[in-house]
Amino acid sequence: MAAELQNMAAEIRPYFDRLWPITRSLTGEGVRQTHEILSEILPLERIEIPSGTQVFDWTIPREWKIREAYIMTPAGKRICDMNVHNLHIMNYSVGFRGKMQLEQLQEHLYSLPDQPNAIPYVTSYYNERWGFCITHDQRMTLTEGEYEVVIDAEHFDGSLTLSECVLPGATPEEVLISTYTCHPSMANNELSGPLVAAFLYKCLAKLENRRLTYRFVFHPETIGAVAYLHLRGTLLSHRCVAGYVVTCVGDPAGFTLKKSRRGDTIADKAAVHVLSNWKGPTQQPPKIYEFWPSGSDERQYCSPGFNLPVASIMRTMYGAYPEYHTSLDNASLVTMEAIAESTLVYFATCKTLDFNRIYTTLNPYGEPQLGKRGLYWTLGSFKLNTDQRIHAIKWLLNMCDGNHSLLDISLMSYKAPTKEVCGSNALLPSDVDFLYAVAQELVNANLLHEK
Amino acid sequence: MAAELQNMAAEIRPYFDRLWPITRSLTGEGVRQTHEILSEILPLERIEIPSGTQVFDWTIPREWKIREAYIMTPAGKRICDMNVHNLHIMNYSVGFRGKMQLEQLQEHLYSLPDQPNAIPYVTSYYNERWGFCITHDQRMTLTEGEYEVVIDAEHFDGSLTLSECVLPGATPEEVLISTYTCHPSMANNELSGPLVAAFLYKCLAKLENRRLTYRFVFHPETIGAVAYLHLRGTLLSHRCVAGYVVTCVGDPAGFTLKKSRRGDTIADKAAVHVLSNWKGPTQQPPKIYEFWPSGSDERQYCSPGFNLPVASIMRTMYGAYPEYHTSLDNASLVTMEAIAESTLVYFATCKTLDFNRIYTTLNPYGEPQLGKRGLYWTLGSFKLNTDQRIHAIKWLLNMCDGNHSLLDISLMSYKAPTKEVCGSNALLPSDVDFLYAVAQELVNANLLHEK
Amino acid sequence: MAAELQNMAAEIRPYFDRLWPITRSLTGEGVRQTHEILSEILPLERIEIPSGTQVFDWTIPREWKIREAYIMTPAGKRICDMNVHNLHIMNYSVGFRGKMQLEQLQEHLYSLPDQPNAIPYVTSYYNERWGFCITHDQRMTLTEGEYEVVIDAEHFDGSLTLSECVLPGATPEEVLISTYTCHPSMANNELSGPLVAAFLYKCLAKLENRRLTYRFVFHPETIGAVAYLHLRGTLLSHRCVAGYVVTCVGDPAGFTLKKSRRGDTIADKAAVHVLSNWKGPTQQPPKIYEFWPSGSDERQYCSPGFNLPVASIMRTMYGAYPEYHTSLDNASLVTMEAIAESTLVYFATCKTLDFNRIYTTLNPYGEPQLGKRGLYWTLGSFKLNTDQRIHAIKWLLNMCDGNHSLLDISLMSYKAPTKEVCGSNALLPSDVDFLYAVAQELVNANLLHEK
Repeated sequence: MAAELQNMAAEIRPYFDRLWPITRSLTGEGVRQTHEILSEILPLERIEIPSGTQVFDWTIPREWKIREAYIMTPAGKRICDMNVHNLHIMNYSVGFRGKMQLEQLQEHLYSLPDQPNAIPYVTSYYNERWGFCITHDQRMTLTEGEYEVVIDAEHFDGSLTLSECVLPGATPEEVLISTYTCHPSMANNELSGPLVAAFLYKCLAKLENRRLTYRFVFHPETIGAVAYLHLRGTLLSHRCVAGYVVTCVGDPAGFTLKKSRRGDTIADKAAVHVLSNWKGPTQQPPKIYEFWPSGSDERQYCSPGFNLPVASIMRTMYGAYPEYHTSLDNASLVTMEAIAESTLVYFATCKTLDFNRIYTTLNPYGEPQLGKRGLYWTLGSFKLNTDQRIHAIKWLLNMCDGNHSLLDISLMSYKAPTKEVCGSNALLPSDVDFLYAVAQELVNANLLHEK
Repeated sequence: MAAELQNMAAEIRPYFDRLWPITRSLTGEGVRQTHEILSEILPLERIEIPSGTQVFDWTIPREWKIREAYIMTPAGKRICDMNVHNLHIMNYSVGFRGKMQLEQLQEHLYSLPDQPNAIPYVTSYYNERWGFCITHDQRMTLTEGEYEVVIDAEHFDGSLTLSECVLPGATPEEVLISTYTCHPSMANNELSGPLVAAFLYKCLAKLENRRLTYRFVFHPETIGAVAYLHLRGTLLSHRCVAGYVVTCVGDPAGFTLKKSRRGDTIADKAAVHVLSNWKGPTQQPPKIYEFWPSGSDERQYCSPGFNLPVASIMRTMYGAYPEYHTSLDNASLVTMEAIAESTLVYFATCKTLDFNRIYTTLNPYGEPQLGKRGLYWTLGSFKLNTDQRIHAIKWLLNMCDGNHSLLDISLMSYKAPTKEVCGSNALLPSDVDFLYAVAQELVNANLLHEK
Repeated sequence: MAAELQNMAAEIRPYFDRLWPITRSLTGEGVRQTHEILSEILPLERIEIPSGTQVFDWTIPREWKIREAYIMTPAGKRICDMNVHNLHIMNYSVGFRGKMQLEQLQEHLYSLPDQPNAIPYVTSYYNERWGFCITHDQRMTLTEGEYEVVIDAEHFDGSLTLSECVLPGATPEEVLISTYTCHPSMANNELSGPLVAAFLYKCLAKLENRRLTYRFVFHPETIGAVAYLHLRGTLLSHRCVAGYVVTCVGDPAGFTLKKSRRGDTIADKAAVHVLSNWKGPTQQPPKIYEFWPSGSDERQYCSPGFNLPVASIMRTMYGAYPEYHTSLDNASLVTMEAIAESTLVYFATCKTLDFNRIYTTLNPYGEPQLGKRGLYWTLGSFKLNTDQRIHAIKWLLNMCDGNHSLLDISLMSYKAPTKEVCGSNALLPSDVDFLYAVAQELVNANLLHEK
């Protein structure tokens, strides 16, 4: 896996570097530029929803255009310049130009006393306001005097940008991969998300004989998910068998699963399965949580009217690391290898779903005689026979009664004392694609039948 | 809470002191005197069931009247005098007057070799006997010679005394509070029970807009519960949504929950919820047990024909402390503050039940837009927003699908990594009354609808 | 129990010694000789199924007759002589006579480099081959030169031998006891199995008023179970309420339960109950595993078409001890006392099933008054009353609602804090036969009714 990770990391790096400096927001050119670049990786189709459109309980907001934003100090020094760091301008800020004393300016400054070297990420999407975000250290150095504030911004009727891409499979059953593109320069949350989603597409596109259809969507958080559900909710209610919100997947720490609201869907099971068996560089055991209704877009996908089987695989999740939503969530917090590894985890999860099938045995009364079909050891010797494949055959023939999928069988096999009984070389198959390959042999031998 | 506890403890003290010396039994004047005093706290209605009445498989016993009981030693010393300690006379003892040698007397003495300074509590309700209870230390000092036994007692056709009191609420759904008044001078078991039940009434009477009806009953253990079920069993089967047997609630140790036979009723859930989050002086974690069919009156309420949702919140339960059912279960074992704290625990549990509701969201598709209703942070900043109320709103809007009550949502929220995600200032609501208040806001905002 | 174990061990010893040297295989005279000896313990009925008979997906193989097998070294030394150890000849080997160089001979030799002093157990039932098993130490001493191989064996149309024995009870509901007799001289796997099964018969034959019918079957592993299911599968599907595959029950280590495929049958519950409470010489806690489809004949009984409630109680199970399937699995690994103790564990399990009943209370409203029926303490004193029987009565009267069997009640009672509440002398009944005896009292008192 090491070489694969290195290669993918090298491929990801230039995209990261190009996407990093863009000033993204709910709407606007930064978002379109971001989607444009991502389109080089996967064939995105753009959807523009006009400002003012009603989407369920929400209204698509006006578009935000920001050209310039800075403060000129009494000493004539330009600070909080969005060209230096785009977190300096409060996201979605209204335009403003004027002079004022420090005291008045302070009401428009946001800083974090507990993290004095961090610029916080602050937005004001639904209230008209202007403001600047600043490190607390710098704020403390501001002296009395007249400050000049320049924010060349406007809001106007435009549109909200969503991009989607459907990678077809043999069946119309879909896996939804959703990620968001509304945050300016922050690395783990959110730039890692769109990168993993895009490179996951590349992996899945190469998967032969795809059974499932994969739907990728990039949109702003919350309003974007609501708008997308307004467009595709009915379709997803019928076709979506699993889905994931891809976010916070860039730091090299252990993985976190936030289960879907239903909690026992194949989206949940496949993720539990993959994370519990993952043999990548990340050695920390996964954290697995039940659903809770704060967080990211799973709140929309799992709203009670849809209740879609949408979970979220993350690394260190939002809120759980101090750099979250500040300028410290930057390139030094994430690694391209971690982003690549997260991509492979998502790929393994999707493969698990794709290879998952339900079979029914055609010989339910006793085991079928495997020997005469060349499927068994010809020599009966516990000490000399350690073929993992034959253990898989036994699991399949016993458990394929039409009620257990390959994923179910795989999860079930964990509980068996396989090491004790079968020796360390005959560990149970932990990969559903391996079980699938063995099941195909049994289908060919007329022993199983796909349900 | 400290001042509230002090005040309530001071209020309880004089009642404890007046009730303590009374010689209670299954029946008789001691019981009536006890109920008379309790009537000063809550408006009890007396029910007298005549001796000989058939109640299910039982018959109401005769009434017991005891005037005097003691033994005169050969040296002319009066011992085992019930005026010194009413445990000396075996409860429900028949009358007797006579002289006998020590050997013969021994057959009528009860003591505990393992607890030589304790007078045991012994009854003989259903077999005609006389006897005295004595410390083993004193018994060892008895010398040969002639003893005079005086028991001026009689059994006669009278009645069994029950008292009940119904505190009405908006709905006929009832919470049953049952406690017993048949034990003579023992403090944790049982005097603490009637005191907590009576003072719980006072708390609930002040609760505004009570939704539930609260039914309090005081009766002798076992036969009293059977008789009460004979009277009210049909009504309780239809109306009782939760109930508790109040006993062993006077010592300052940690709480114990004995669940109802059904085990998953709201009586159980509310108690688990309150005990798991209790922030009173008692810091020990609660002990939570499944139902078992020994113990107190939950045996009758949870008999299979009724199977009522009746649990029991105790502190150190019957049998689990060495002083149980002896003269050592006295005022030094209990504190008025502990009795007051137990009252507040029961009150919190009843409030949990009272505020518990089921709601259905009116906006099931995606989250409703809270900002435009003034229900959300106007400023988007993870670091600066820590309002518990908004987390409660998210839980309610997601989980109010008509299947989850506020109590369910509260219990569900424990599993979420709220601290990690939302910071320590934004802990999930643990009180159902808080969730209720937030839900009312959402009802007013036309977002929820009470089911 | 010590004396009972000693006596049974002494009774088992001569059978072990007579059965040990016999060369068993899938078929043939060794098997018949084995069944003949076992018939001295229990009245077996022989079933012979002709070679070539189709049984589900399998065909009954030809019979194997082996008269002589050895290798003559260049130095004229006779090695791998099956008369010295019957594991030397590969089981079911074809006949062969010829001379060859060492290099050619090596292709027919099987040894274990990791266990150089062990002769492995190797079979070739379904491929025509000849071969010898040899310790790796001895193999290393073989020098170049010409070897003479003598295997006087033949395969011919004969029959497969199964023996069964039905011990009738009051109802046609059956417990299946299945064990196998196809392994040559190995002690824990398998000689312990048939011995435990046979002596279990002796115990059960003495059990008065047996409710259940017990079916014992001895056959070769796998093909024998398939053939037996072909004969009796329909009957078992209707009548078998519990079953066990008896194997690996000879070593003195702790017990292992492999649950049935269904996992929650009374076969599983009874075994969990007995193993969790076993007070025999074996002090190690039991290992309890869910079903997995490798192992022994439970694979056939639990194949999805039958899915019988068949579990397996073992001591150290197949595969989990290094001597498994080698000449080191010999008399020094097992003890007659351990075989006897395993027999008693199986007997206790069968008794648990036999005494298991479902009752319904005839007095569901409150507890019935036990005192007037002489079923209760006449003296009410917690400190002086410690009768286990009365605790059992309370459990039965509360839980016998037609939904809980005695076994269910017994398992349920584990969770109660009985020690704390009732004192150490009043532990809950852990034996279903005790609960049964108490239930019979209650039936006689017109308080319970057998469902």
